[in-house]
Parts: sequence; C-alpha cells; structure tokens
Amino acid sequence: MPEGSLVFPADEYRRRTAALQAEMQARDQDALLLTTPADVFYVTGFLTRFWESPARPWFIVVPASAPPVAIIPHIGADLMGRTWISDIRTWNAPDPVDDGVTLLADTLANLVPEQGCVGVPMGLETQLRMPLRDFGRLTERTAARRFVDATQTVQRVREIKSAAEIDKIRTICGIADAAFATVPEFATAGRPLDQVFRDFQIALLAAGADWVSYTAGGAGQAGYGDVISPADETPLKPGDVLMLDTGAVKDGYFCDFDRNFAIGAVDAAAERAHAALFAATEAAMARLRPGMTAADLHGLLSGALRAQGATPCGGRLGHGLGLTLTEWPSLTPKDQTELREGMVLTLEPSVFVDPEGRPGTIMVHEENIVLRADGPELLHRRTTSELPRIGA
Amino acid sequence: MPEGSLVFPADEYRRRTAALQAEMQARDQDALLLTTPADVFYVTGFLTRFWESPARPWFIVVPASAPPVAIIPHIGADLMGRTWISDIRTWNAPDPVDDGVTLLADTLANLVPEQGCVGVPMGLETQLRMPLRDFGRLTERTAARRFVDATQTVQRVREIKSAAEIDKIRTICGIADAAFATVPEFATAGRPLDQVFRDFQIALLAAGADWVSYTAGGAGQAGYGDVISPADETPLKPGDVLMLDTGAVKDGYFCDFDRNFAIGAVDAAAERAHAALFAATEAAMARLRPGMTAADLHGLLSGALRAQGATPCGGRLGHGLGLTLTEWPSLTPKDQTELREGMVLTLEPSVFVDPEGRPGTIMVHEENIVLRADGPELLHRRTTSELPRIGA
Repeated sequence: MPEGSLVFPADEYRRRTAALQAEMQARDQDALLLTTPADVFYVTGFLTRFWESPARPWFIVVPASAPPVAIIPHIGADLMGRTWISDIRTWNAPDPVDDGVTLLADTLANLVPEQGCVGVPMGLETQLRMPLRDFGRLTERTAARRFVDATQTVQRVREIKSAAEIDKIRTICGIADAAFATVPEFATAGRPLDQVFRDFQIALLAAGADWVSYTAGGAGQAGYGDVISPADETPLKPGDVLMLDTGAVKDGYFCDFDRNFAIGAVDAAAERAHAALFAATEAAMARLRPGMTAADLHGLLSGALRAQGATPCGGRLGHGLGLTLTEWPSLTPKDQTELREGMVLTLEPSVFVDPEGRPGTIMVHEENIVLRADGPELLHRRTTSELPRIGA
Repeated sequence: MPEGSLVFPADEYRRRTAALQAEMQARDQDALLLTTPADVFYVTGFLTRFWESPARPWFIVVPASAPPVAIIPHIGADLMGRTWISDIRTWNAPDPVDDGVTLLADTLANLVPEQGCVGVPMGLETQLRMPLRDFGRLTERTAARRFVDATQTVQRVREIKSAAEIDKIRTICGIADAAFATVPEFATAGRPLDQVFRDFQIALLAAGADWVSYTAGGAGQAGYGDVISPADETPLKPGDVLMLDTGAVKDGYFCDFDRNFAIGAVDAAAERAHAALFAATEAAMARLRPGMTAADLHGLLSGALRAQGATPCGGRLGHGLGLTLTEWPSLTPKDQTELREGMVLTLEPSVFVDPEGRPGTIMVHEENIVLRADGPELLHRRTTSELPRIGA
C-alpha cells in the first residue's frame, strides 16, 4: 500500500474531500458528520474489519473548507495515523459516561459557526452509526447549530467512481470470476448446500479475496425459492438449479454478481428462464446510456423480460456497487436518480421460472458494469448464454 | 434445522420473548422496536447475511403482552415465514417515498395505547438501523406515543445465554480451536501476512464455520503494533510474534479469541509478556464469580498483570460475546454492569512487551468463557502456558 495512506495515494482522498466540500458549499452546509464504515473509509482510507464490533462509534467531521478531523476511539489511533488525516482526536471507548460526545461536540463547536449547519446522511439507504441517545446529547450540546440531511451531498459524490476505484472493483470481480470457474469441481450432485457455500468461500479466498462479506444462493428443482436464506444441509440433486452470489472484498471494494448452474439435466422451463434473463441483460446493456434514470433502466430490464414471455419478480432489478455490497440507486419504478458516467451498477433481472408467474421458483442473473459515455462496460466475464451444466 | 423455525425450536424464541416482555412490563414499556440483525435474530430466528446490504430497514415490534410482529421488506417474507413469527407485514423496499414508515407507524398505533410508550435501544453499544429521517417521521406519525430508551430491557435479557446458546458458542469455539491447530502448517517464515490471513480464514471454513465475519491480527519482532489493521504483504520473519484473532460464525453465533505464535526464536521479552498474560488470565479465572462487576474483573486482570511486573495497555480487557463479535459489558474501570451466571465473556488482557510500558509493541491474549455459579468455564482449549514456536 502507498506510504502514508491506505489503499490509495493521499491525492485520491484529497480529491474526494474537495468534491464533498463543493457539494456542501452548494447546499450551505458548514460541516459533514460521517459515522459509517464506508463513509469513513471513503474520506480517510481507514480500512478495518473492526467495524464488526458494534461497541464503539467513530466520527469524521469534514469542514466546508478545511481538512477532515477524525474523532475516534483510541484503539484506532495507530491505524488512522497511517492515513492522510493529521488531526486525530481520541478517547477511551467504550465510556458509559461520555462516549466521545463531548469531544465531538467541542470539535463541531470549534469548526461550525454558531448559527451554522451540520450535514448528516439521514435519507434512504443511510444509517447513523452511533447510539441514538448520544446523537440527542450532541444536538443539545452544539446549541443553535442545526443538523440537516446530507444524503445528497454524500451520494452525488460517492456514486461517481474514480478510475482507481473502478480498477479495484474490476480486480475483485476478476477474483470472483476465477472462483466461479472452480464451482463445477465441488458443486456436484450429492454435495450438501452448506458445504458448497463453504467451498465457494474458500475458492474466493484462494483466488485472492481479502475476505468474503457476503455469500448467498439457493438450489432447487428448476430454480430456487429465495435468495437470502442461509444454506442448509440438503444435498444437490440432479435437476436442481444452483445459484451462488457473492460480495467478496479486496482493498475495501466489493463485487456483487452471481452465477447459475444446472446439476445434470434440468427442466426446459429453467433453460428458458436462463435464456430470457440473458437476453434481457443484453437488451438493457445495448440501450443503457448516461442521462437515463434508475427507473428507466428498471423499465428496460422488465420490458425486455416481458418481451421474452417471462414474468419479472417484484423488487429491484439492480443497484449501485462499490464500498458496500449494495449502494444507491435502486433499479425500481420509483427511483428517479440520474445514471451518470462513472457509476458502477449491478444489473440483476429476476424471473419466475414458471412463465405464468406462479410463485415458488425463481431465477436471478446479476452482472456488474461501469457506465461509460457510450454505454455500459462489463467488469468481469459475461455469463454464458446457455445455463452451464455440472455433471451428466 | 428444526421444522418451522430457524436455528432453535420455537420454544427458545418464545422464552426470549417472554423474558423481554417481563422487562418491558417492569419498565412500563408497551412495545419494543428492534432494528438490528442481532436483535431481530434473537427474537425471531431470522438469520441471513443479507444485512450486509444497507439498502433496507427491517423492524420487529414486540408488544408487552402479544406475539411479535415483523414489518419487513418483501424480499424477506419467505425466510421470515419459516420462523415462528406468524404476523408478517411487508412492503416493496427500498421505496424513496415511504420506506415502511407508514406500515410501521400503523402497526405501532394499533398495538400501543395513545399515551403509551415504545422502547428503542438508544444507549451505549447500540445503534438504530434505519434512516434517521424516517425515525423522525415515525415519531411524528405515532402522535402522543413516546419513544424511550430500552437498552436495559434488551441487554439484561440478551446477556444471559441459554444452554442452547452456550452450546452454539462452544461449537464455533471448537471450530476455531481446530483452525488454530493448523496455523503452524501455513504461518511459516517468508509467508506474507495477507496470505496467512487468507489461509486462516480457509482453515476456519474447512473446520466448519458457516462464514468468517472477523479476522484480525498482527506480526512484528517480539510483538505487534496494533490489532485492527488489515494485513499487508510483509513476509513473516524469524523473531516475529504472530497473533491471529477471529470472530467466526456458526448458526449465527460468534467466537472471539486469539492465539500467539513465535516464528522461530523470539526475544525473551516476548516470552515474558506471554507468561504474564497467561498468568493474569489464570488469576482472574480463579477469582471471578457472579456478583462481581465488569469493573471488578478489569481490576482482577490489570492487577494480576501488574503483579507479574507487566504494564497493561489502556482500553478494555474483555467484553460480552454471542450474537455479535462483541457485546456489552466492557471490562473497563467505568463499567458497573453486574456479571451474572450464564453470561458469556471474553478475557482479553493486553500488555506492552517492553516491561517499562514503552509503546509500539504489544501482546494480547483472549479466551472465551461462560460464567457459572462457581466461576468461569472455558469454551475451548486454553492457550499453552509457553508461547508456541513455529520453525526452528
């Protein structure tokens, strides 16, 4: 990793901070308060799995025209000290009396004018990662300063990926590609699904993932029931369609795509569902351009599925991708977010395997793309047009 | 897994709900609103890695004297339908106009009297996993109903583990034991630390972990600098002390313990630090009893370290364990939480390797115990009294 910073050279983080500050100034926000792993990493380069512990809050304050300040538990001082951030203020967390609130309030009082405005992401797909009671105390101790929603400030900047970020996402996508190529070696009839999930995670690590934050999937005759359940011990059977989906991580960046496999010969309805999903992604990729909205892209995908005689499942048909497994926007009929050059997105059409739309058995495809001026660019190998078969 | 519920039979969840309701009634709380993966799993058995996506909020409402109600995104309906929860209300999330707020507000308005009180965990070591703006809308739409801090309600129940929970934690601890036993096979001089981290995660999966939510560690001459940084490509060298720490998961339950290894011969100061840490844990385990506080246990550990001539690092010296990598209480001088029979805790003494306390190089031990009436019971094999050596 580059000296004096983590994952990227310091200039990458300086550019991000400047972009956030431009948005803040346009919205009259005097500072931004960030609390989540992705937002903190985005500004500072501070990357750790220690977020898995819910015990301690972490705060980054980005003033409108000065370098960011880290207000963090002392246990993170060493690692934060290796980033480009030079103003690091620590306390011994967790502290049942005052878990950083006074330190944070004093910092804000110092950086934000008395009638000023602190932006906090409060909108769709955001969370405040600190105790709610302490946020109340903070607003009391910062007197007349107002706390306003800064979702737009953060999302309009983070959603456009730099070349360096796109390289990172392409790298982890390539690692997942390599792992998917080994699935026929272990996902054979008779193998329990929970073992297949373990084998797949091992394959991702062996291919170079730093860690595997997400695996999901399903298996069943001609398709699967849902895509978020943990695996059980049911063995794969001939006629099953197996789906594996992963959010593996390298240098803090996620991939999020899936692959389907036929275990031996499968029902023709599964072959047709796979073909319809493949064709829908092809059609959407041919027409997708910057300037469309997330809702437009949802319309492209669902329209293409219907044109194939397939019935789309409800729910979103893709989303943003980068520092978390899923980012905004959401490909739904209601999401009017403009799709812009440099966005990384997943295209995730799903259908009922039964063309009449009877529930119970579904199939999902997912591909990761970056949106360029002239359309989407795939970040990994495209799935095959025919459902790949494992075993006779 | 048992039919009709996930991980445990339905009676386990019914007992938990009854225990929460007893605490609610004692505190005049008419309902509890839960939003985090651990709280939702605790009440319902709903276990999924899908929480990795920050896109959607999930809500469980526990009325003071009626069964829990799930208000969740439609994508979770199938999985929640396989738990013991029968009242499941869904919406198509994410929805930029109304992301479940009206559905949740209507549910609370129906279940909670007009002047009633809704408990939400707001205190130390808690987070509200929903957009802050939507929590504001919720409080507006539920009229005179008050939202109060329910941290005590939840923590006093969840911190006492059932026999079934202790079995689960013991199982994942045994899996980590088996993985630690294989470390000498791959953590040899010349192997880069990031590869060692991958090898270790593979070993945990091969030993039966469902997934690996946390690995950390460090390596350096006679000790390491910090314990939360991601691994870099520096090769292990003779004279290094390598530490590996893991929060692996089986059936939703975590282990959290570490092991230290000498790479060849190491400085005598490292051997002394290891001996002091071992002795401190021994001393604390011999004296720990229910009725002490978290602060008392901190005092036992730090006192025993000083009696060995060692200098404890700042920060907590252990914590609760179970549904997340770390749970309350925190073994600090300020945490007055009573330690009770059935609590699962980590004992995590740490010292500066230099007995004068010079910063830069530290060593950390960690063991997982359940507190019984007559003292602690280890949930895995104890580390060896001497620092184990890999290579000549």
